[in-house]
Amino acid sequence: MADSAAKHETDELYQKAKRAKSDNENGGGEVGKEIECENILSEFKTTKVLSDSAREKNIFIHGKLADQDAVIILEKTPIREDTLAELFTGSTLKLEMKNDIYSTYRLQAPPQLNEIKTTVVCPATEKHIKKYQRQESFLVEETGADYQSITLPYIQKQSFSVQWVYNILEKKAEADRIVFEDPDPTVGFLLLPDFKWDQKQVDDLYLIAITLQRGIRSLRDLTQEHLPLLQTIFQKGKEAILQRYQLPASKLRVYLHYQPSYYHLHVHFTKLGYEAPGCGVERAHLLADVIQNLQSDPEYYKTRTLYFPLRVDDGLLSKYKEAGRL
Amino acid sequence: MADSAAKHETDELYQKAKRAKSDNENGGGEVGKEIECENILSEFKTTKVLSDSAREKNIFIHGKLADQDAVIILEKTPIREDTLAELFTGSTLKLEMKNDIYSTYRLQAPPQLNEIKTTVVCPATEKHIKKYQRQESFLVEETGADYQSITLPYIQKQSFSVQWVYNILEKKAEADRIVFEDPDPTVGFLLLPDFKWDQKQVDDLYLIAITLQRGIRSLRDLTQEHLPLLQTIFQKGKEAILQRYQLPASKLRVYLHYQPSYYHLHVHFTKLGYEAPGCGVERAHLLADVIQNLQSDPEYYKTRTLYFPLRVDDGLLSKYKEAGRL
Repeated sequence: MADSAAKHETDELYQKAKRAKSDNENGGGEVGKEIECENILSEFKTTKVLSDSAREKNIFIHGKLADQDAVIILEKTPIREDTLAELFTGSTLKLEMKNDIYSTYRLQAPPQLNEIKTTVVCPATEKHIKKYQRQESFLVEETGADYQSITLPYIQKQSFSVQWVYNILEKKAEADRIVFEDPDPTVGFLLLPDFKWDQKQVDDLYLIAITLQRGIRSLRDLTQEHLPLLQTIFQKGKEAILQRYQLPASKLRVYLHYQPSYYHLHVHFTKLGYEAPGCGVERAHLLADVIQNLQSDPEYYKTRTLYFPLRVDDGLLSKYKEAGRL
Repeated sequence: MADSAAKHETDELYQKAKRAKSDNENGGGEVGKEIECENILSEFKTTKVLSDSAREKNIFIHGKLADQDAVIILEKTPIREDTLAELFTGSTLKLEMKNDIYSTYRLQAPPQLNEIKTTVVCPATEKHIKKYQRQESFLVEETGADYQSITLPYIQKQSFSVQWVYNILEKKAEADRIVFEDPDPTVGFLLLPDFKWDQKQVDDLYLIAITLQRGIRSLRDLTQEHLPLLQTIFQKGKEAILQRYQLPASKLRVYLHYQPSYYHLHVHFTKLGYEAPGCGVERAHLLADVIQNLQSDPEYYKTRTLYFPLRVDDGLLSKYKEAGRL
């Protein structure tokens, strides 16, 4: 849930900054919707590093902000081609070693060319903290019957909040981040940049389409009656991305997660070639396949055994263990 | 292959640099620990970005240093736990957005806490440049008819050699690497470690099951008659991995590629959680799903539209372009 919320957060300032920049260039407006704020991190007391990735250059930290539990996520930003010239001329180089035609340096760049994306979740619940804790995963085999007897009761009992999704649908939050909207109550959806994407390059393009229709929890709820909805998201989502980002359908990976991180139907659009977290075959289902499967068998996702990874601390995994299914 | 070579090379350089650094700290050697040097990058003229990764925060650039061809590799450094306190107190924060308990910022850190690892290859040969060049991919949509009219003729015309596979099956090569063998001519297979796996830890376990039966090119050739073969590979493969590596089925991702990299049926066994190259939903098909699909529709893989990525230099992509299918 937090993850998915997390997915949505990033790019507002980019939009704002872009707008501010263009205002400024047009001689109007105040510069810098880019608010330099009090450094709240200076009061942050680290409790524990929950996880980190040397490959992705990120770190998830649990700690306290004032007296509240908080999770801070730091992730270095991708290197942008359009800043290279400035980076090359404005940085300091420290030689590390030289060997034949190879040499290595440590480059110290001007801070504004080398930012760290920072997300603060505060107050953070026990669930957030668990979510970001590095955990082993197990592959679960869920038959249609398992879904009815184990998964569905668990989802219903947990009644995971999707209030933040409803805030978006009702334009109470993130309204200025919407990339595309189809307002039809049955087949309509909103398309927004995912939280993980800073929108500064299309290399790691990541958008989410959220259905306006409520109550479709996941893949398991889909039947032939949802084909118009799925086809609308597929077609109009691709068109909107082509128009806005000049990226054709042949450069996109369009898929659903099962299990999803929140139980309100949504579809992931990521750039082909970008190894987005969760795009592995064990969790992702191509929307094109979902549509075909429902076309040929309306009960496909009701009856089929589905496989998905669950982290060791996931309450649902305990249910599967209790049922002797692992 | 080029990718891993590149990685390996930077690793090696890093090791060398580390050794040089430690020599210096021990009072030996004259290699500068941290020499602030002339910023040679300021004269670098970029010709072309060869590749970059938004996920890994690196970029490979071809250009000129003085009059020589050079490749520059920049990669942001992992975030170190031991610098967090200093990072939190010494940085500037810019607010991006706030929604409920989530807020995002851009953090501008002191340059020495946020270095960029820089490798210079100069003079660089044509080979270096090719090695670091990324090949773009496109997602191809292949109907059952496209397979018959475009893909199959291409495969047949190319007559890709699978002699190396036959050498394995005939124990003329790699016989000592076989982990498990079922000698049945119809449902039998050999299980071997993939070359990408050094077998030193199970974290990145990667094995391949190769069918003894010849002539099954890919997913497209599978029908219900192959169910016993697929089920044998699935069951016995999992058992063999449990026995040999103590890894249960719930820690495995078992799948086929489409398109495969060679047209003799084989199945991939990788550790769940290890993001093996090619395990993305756009190329991988869970063996469990393949079995279910064939059980409910013997013609599933003959008739279904399949999606897969092709690199820009792939001959098959040209065929799809010629056919106006891209």
